[in-house]
Amino acid sequence: MKNFLKISLLAISIMSSINFVQAQQLAIVEDFKPSSLNQPQQEYPMVNSQGYARFKIAAPTADSVRVSLGLGGRGGTKLAKAEDGTWMGTTEGHMDEGFHYYNVKIDGGKFNDPGTLNYYGSVRWESGIEIPAADQDFYALKNVPHGNVQQILFPSLSTGTSRRAFVYTPPGYEKGKGKYPVLYLQHGWGEDETAWMNQGRANLIMDNLIADGKIKPFIIVNTYGMTNEVKWGKMKEFKIDGFQTVLVDELIPFIDANFRTIAKKEQRAMAGLSMGGMETKTISLNKPDVFAYYGLLSGGTYASTDFKDKPQPKLIFLSCGSKERPDGIRKALEELKTAGFNAVSYISEGTAHEFQTWRRSLLAMAPLLFK
Amino acid sequence: MKNFLKISLLAISIMSSINFVQAQQLAIVEDFKPSSLNQPQQEYPMVNSQGYARFKIAAPTADSVRVSLGLGGRGGTKLAKAEDGTWMGTTEGHMDEGFHYYNVKIDGGKFNDPGTLNYYGSVRWESGIEIPAADQDFYALKNVPHGNVQQILFPSLSTGTSRRAFVYTPPGYEKGKGKYPVLYLQHGWGEDETAWMNQGRANLIMDNLIADGKIKPFIIVNTYGMTNEVKWGKMKEFKIDGFQTVLVDELIPFIDANFRTIAKKEQRAMAGLSMGGMETKTISLNKPDVFAYYGLLSGGTYASTDFKDKPQPKLIFLSCGSKERPDGIRKALEELKTAGFNAVSYISEGTAHEFQTWRRSLLAMAPLLFK
Repeated sequence: MKNFLKISLLAISIMSSINFVQAQQLAIVEDFKPSSLNQPQQEYPMVNSQGYARFKIAAPTADSVRVSLGLGGRGGTKLAKAEDGTWMGTTEGHMDEGFHYYNVKIDGGKFNDPGTLNYYGSVRWESGIEIPAADQDFYALKNVPHGNVQQILFPSLSTGTSRRAFVYTPPGYEKGKGKYPVLYLQHGWGEDETAWMNQGRANLIMDNLIADGKIKPFIIVNTYGMTNEVKWGKMKEFKIDGFQTVLVDELIPFIDANFRTIAKKEQRAMAGLSMGGMETKTISLNKPDVFAYYGLLSGGTYASTDFKDKPQPKLIFLSCGSKERPDGIRKALEELKTAGFNAVSYISEGTAHEFQTWRRSLLAMAPLLFK
Repeated sequence: MKNFLKISLLAISIMSSINFVQAQQLAIVEDFKPSSLNQPQQEYPMVNSQGYARFKIAAPTADSVRVSLGLGGRGGTKLAKAEDGTWMGTTEGHMDEGFHYYNVKIDGGKFNDPGTLNYYGSVRWESGIEIPAADQDFYALKNVPHGNVQQILFPSLSTGTSRRAFVYTPPGYEKGKGKYPVLYLQHGWGEDETAWMNQGRANLIMDNLIADGKIKPFIIVNTYGMTNEVKWGKMKEFKIDGFQTVLVDELIPFIDANFRTIAKKEQRAMAGLSMGGMETKTISLNKPDVFAYYGLLSGGTYASTDFKDKPQPKLIFLSCGSKERPDGIRKALEELKTAGFNAVSYISEGTAHEFQTWRRSLLAMAPLLFK
């Protein structure tokens, strides 16, 4: 239960992505459609063309139903009893484009909206909703050749178990003979190895980039980034050693032994979002001979001094949403470039510490890898 | 909302799997442990060594909290307010071994238990709980070589979209050169292509069978078995044509083109549970040149007359739980054997129309395939 307080910190960063209608009250356009992440046959939640979300929850004898999305810091959207006995409500402001986690408070307990699919975030499977974005085409399921996403179970002596990873192999991998570079791509705190494919749609982003001829195909590997569980707010207690061993000494050799990879540093990248960026920074500096391309997505910055007595990476990619702290990224980029590093930054316009920022970051980073 | 009534029919078959303590009141042994399907860091639900389940739900100001497991037909287990303000309760009887779906009624609304992982059943993502079974070793995650489970997106002209399937490839597939037979294995009504790997643990059953040298490795393919949505209770309106086209004309050619299969009838099996059995029967008889091995798992029976003017299959496998209608299986088996068919039956002792029956059925069927 202690977790609640910590998790609410994350919730705040999520809620801060709501744009409030302030001076001028916008009329809500009544063109609501089911969110694309709804469970089969479920009408609600709905989203309109302005980015408002509308919720409907059946709990006939409840005293209070509240959705965690919609009112920054003030407890979300309070639903009201509708004529048919269900609880309904619409967010007060429109929401940022892209994917949002949320949950439903019913009489003081935290549950999921039975209308939507669940996504692992905040150390729980949360409800998910998708606000259609102007640029949603780049992560849409299209009629192009599709790569596969494989669940693998790899032996981990250091943790005494088989651990799970997901491996994206590009279209044609199964029948081909070629060897591929590999991007090791990490999730954020409270998420797990399912995040990049489920919330991030990394496989579809890759399929579309490859179909458009914008990148040379590569493999993506996602695994769980913690071996000691650390609560939000206590990240300073997080020890990287356990995960570093799993990644560098167990997972990478397993991938190189079981997939057609080009098993050398120049064909290996590591990137991560939020906590995964912190991990990328630490491991890339601890193990400078393993990866040649580094990406921190809403996950901090490098300074040129980090590389004293260390080889320069082939690429440093830094990104975040415009609603985060883009100035930190811009400054770090300038410093790195001045010092002679191949550094590139990307700021996702109009998004916060959420998956739309990271989908776009992957889109921006992928063409720069393995050059 | 109409769905509720239909779904409750399925719920009843689930609830009937509870064994009630009747004449002699058994003392509940206080050795409860978290269910193996709990979300990370979640203590509840718990299960004891006798197969009782104990639930704990936080909803401080709710009027009524009820879990759908625990009391056959009488509405499940009613939770009571505990001293710490949470709602708690223990099933009145012990439950059958294996996997059970359930949900939580809070003030009249249907939600999931935030403590557990969700599994797609009854046309919704439901809470799952696992009652440890005496024979659980055969589907345990063990230190053996593991096959991979791949999500593929295959083009389907007939339905105008890319459809999803999961493909189990045996250990060593990635680096090997051999070709493999394929089992097309279908889920039940209200479930989808995730069921056999998630609830059924089909990949672990295969890994363990292969590690023990009990079967020759083969590939398993799961896809969604409906193209027209039909509600429970209206299965007579279900038309097989759409799914048959997807399976036979689209999925099988795609699998044969993209995986190292032995692409001929003698190396292809179809089986399914419940509705998937019905589909197997219909498609195997409609398309006698596609599959050579047929399996109906709690999914009906064949009669020898079904094969008038048709080639005999290499195997007919029929199974169900001892709490279903094993007599139907036994009679059908006798009739088929008398008529000269290679028919084998399996009755899962002490289980009902639930996944423990189907896990065991796969264990019994797999060694008989592709002989």
